[in-house]
Amino acid sequence: MFTINDNFCKLPESYLFSEVARRINAFKQTNPEADVIRMGIGDVTLPLCKAAIEAMHKAVDDEGNAETFHGYGPEQGYAFLRDAIAKYDYNKRNIDIDPSEIFVSDGAKSDTGNFGDILSVNNIVAVTDPVYPVYVDTNVMAGRAGELTDGAWNKIVYLPVTAANDFIPALPTDDIVPDIIYLCYPNNPTGTTLTRNQLKVWVDYALKHGSLILFDSAYETFIRQEDVPHSIYEIEGARRCAVEFRSFSKTAGFTGVRCGYTVVPKDLVTCDSEGKEVSLNSLWNRRQCTKFNGASYISQRGAAAVYTDEGRKQIKEAVDYYLTNARILREGLTAAGLEVFGGINAPYVWIKTPGNMTSWEFFDLLLKKCNVAGTPGSGFGPSGEGYFRLTAFNTLENTIEAVKRITTRL
Amino acid sequence: MFTINDNFCKLPESYLFSEVARRINAFKQTNPEADVIRMGIGDVTLPLCKAAIEAMHKAVDDEGNAETFHGYGPEQGYAFLRDAIAKYDYNKRNIDIDPSEIFVSDGAKSDTGNFGDILSVNNIVAVTDPVYPVYVDTNVMAGRAGELTDGAWNKIVYLPVTAANDFIPALPTDDIVPDIIYLCYPNNPTGTTLTRNQLKVWVDYALKHGSLILFDSAYETFIRQEDVPHSIYEIEGARRCAVEFRSFSKTAGFTGVRCGYTVVPKDLVTCDSEGKEVSLNSLWNRRQCTKFNGASYISQRGAAAVYTDEGRKQIKEAVDYYLTNARILREGLTAAGLEVFGGINAPYVWIKTPGNMTSWEFFDLLLKKCNVAGTPGSGFGPSGEGYFRLTAFNTLENTIEAVKRITTRL
Repeated sequence: MFTINDNFCKLPESYLFSEVARRINAFKQTNPEADVIRMGIGDVTLPLCKAAIEAMHKAVDDEGNAETFHGYGPEQGYAFLRDAIAKYDYNKRNIDIDPSEIFVSDGAKSDTGNFGDILSVNNIVAVTDPVYPVYVDTNVMAGRAGELTDGAWNKIVYLPVTAANDFIPALPTDDIVPDIIYLCYPNNPTGTTLTRNQLKVWVDYALKHGSLILFDSAYETFIRQEDVPHSIYEIEGARRCAVEFRSFSKTAGFTGVRCGYTVVPKDLVTCDSEGKEVSLNSLWNRRQCTKFNGASYISQRGAAAVYTDEGRKQIKEAVDYYLTNARILREGLTAAGLEVFGGINAPYVWIKTPGNMTSWEFFDLLLKKCNVAGTPGSGFGPSGEGYFRLTAFNTLENTIEAVKRITTRL
Repeated sequence: MFTINDNFCKLPESYLFSEVARRINAFKQTNPEADVIRMGIGDVTLPLCKAAIEAMHKAVDDEGNAETFHGYGPEQGYAFLRDAIAKYDYNKRNIDIDPSEIFVSDGAKSDTGNFGDILSVNNIVAVTDPVYPVYVDTNVMAGRAGELTDGAWNKIVYLPVTAANDFIPALPTDDIVPDIIYLCYPNNPTGTTLTRNQLKVWVDYALKHGSLILFDSAYETFIRQEDVPHSIYEIEGARRCAVEFRSFSKTAGFTGVRCGYTVVPKDLVTCDSEGKEVSLNSLWNRRQCTKFNGASYISQRGAAAVYTDEGRKQIKEAVDYYLTNARILREGLTAAGLEVFGGINAPYVWIKTPGNMTSWEFFDLLLKKCNVAGTPGSGFGPSGEGYFRLTAFNTLENTIEAVKRITTRL
């Protein structure tokens, strides 16, 4: 009789966003006149830029003509896109990344989730806490997490990031060395960043201990401060210890179009169990060629257009719009007496709940008094308790209105 | 120190299509005047139908306007597509499948490759032989294949399908019961089919032994004979033992656009290691929600258009065109004295190599004498030796010319 992967049964029901929706709906039932501003979801709202739209119309036309029809593309992505990524996201920033080190995909969620395929189940995993739940859940599925006790998995190393340490994760203690370290900067959910020097600490640690850093820079395009690295490969030695995940979702609004990429440098090598040198670039290439058939040609043409002169100008305008919202949230809520983090190089602001309220108590209070919905920080991990996330992806008008309500009613 | 999934190192280099390309290029170097007709690749060549093109233009416009913008969609696919699939591919054929049992994805290769995520690594896997290599390679990666000896994996059960058994796989012998059985009908690479009664034998076997059938019907749209089932769910009891994979790649030419789907009936339940009942529909839903972020909105709109009156008419014309090519190949090569299989309900013809030639010997002969390139059957598994695959995806003119050359020059 066939049997299932029992690790799936260890996962508790994923209830965060459904519970958020349930409470909002219940509130609206009893308060039908309330105009609830939703600032919980991490999805973009502005339409795609003109350059991408035009390129995708042309790509659709290509698919309608025999002479220009594109069937199966390279599993790694088309050269026109890999070349543009290498040039604009790396080489122009003096970062040494070759197009052959870039793997285009349908998005960073797939890639961060699937990357564990090429890694042993025996690796010890570390995550910052609070954390994007995909890192943890996919390792539970793979059998790397152990058992869930008091909201934490006993084989996962949690690295708390809270106001107590200025959101700078401390290196693991000497008694346990993680093999795989997930870092996401600019961070989801806290909206905070690491400076070059702070990130260097982690690269040095990984090189010293033979750890692999899985670096998620999905929010890179929101970086505005000079000392915040855009890529982990700005740090010396990172080509030997880090994989980087990027996405067009937040960069260019591609959450519905689906396109992202993963960088696996050719210097990233290790040994198999027999001591033979193995390149992670080759392993990931093999994984993608076997279990993936390339991202949509239309999506890839759209993504490539983001790198044209017009495209770069247009997506910057959209990101600036969201960053204006983030600034209004950050400054407005700080002025209102709240302790607020993030929101400078990221579309998220992370609020310390006042008066030692729990994350869910603050959620209920904000919904009831201000008709503003966000996301309870405790949903992102044990150290998220007592925090609350608001996103900058709503409209400017709604953002201003939300700040006004919180300032006057809370 | 981090360690890799050592199973990846067991995989030999995948050289089939690169070796085919190498030999063609070498031949063209020494015979620059030769006009080689390529009939090896399994990719479509006709452009997309008008209905899909129009729908995708409209979807691109949707993404360019704030009022109609679509960001993250449901991981399972949009209701407009799941409803159309349930209605046209199942309910109108009197097959009981609910939209909630359909999971839209970026293609059947991803789904057949990823489905093993929710299954234990201890399951015994059976494949028909020759076989689509993805089924085998993904199980090697997962650790279910054992060791490679003389071209076969020692933990995989191979079910030969050759002229000797009329390409009808025999049930496994009593001493070994596979837990997971991959069946692909209409078959890639042989182009052959099973009748309802022949498929019923496998459903009955699976129900009796608690096996799971992973049924790949990517070529369903090519079926023209009455007694060939379009879905495994036409067979009584299949809802309790089978998952079905479908794709718009061959149905509607979406190889570059990327859209497919997987059906996981809610009747498909098993027990976890503690004896608790588990629904595979829930497990796959959890897997997709965690490691996938939905197929492109534009691709899904294109796929939905395939089910409109115009769309269904237009894709039938394209499939009829390929089936005409298949008939010309089958009839022409049979008349030329070759033993030919498949090509009636599939875009592939499967040729017995004449005079006991190996698959590669016939490849070289056909390339040299006829300037026609196909795929050696031995590349698809041990029982593919002595066979050769030609595809119907070239143009009508080239197909006629290829038959003429083989008839006159071989």
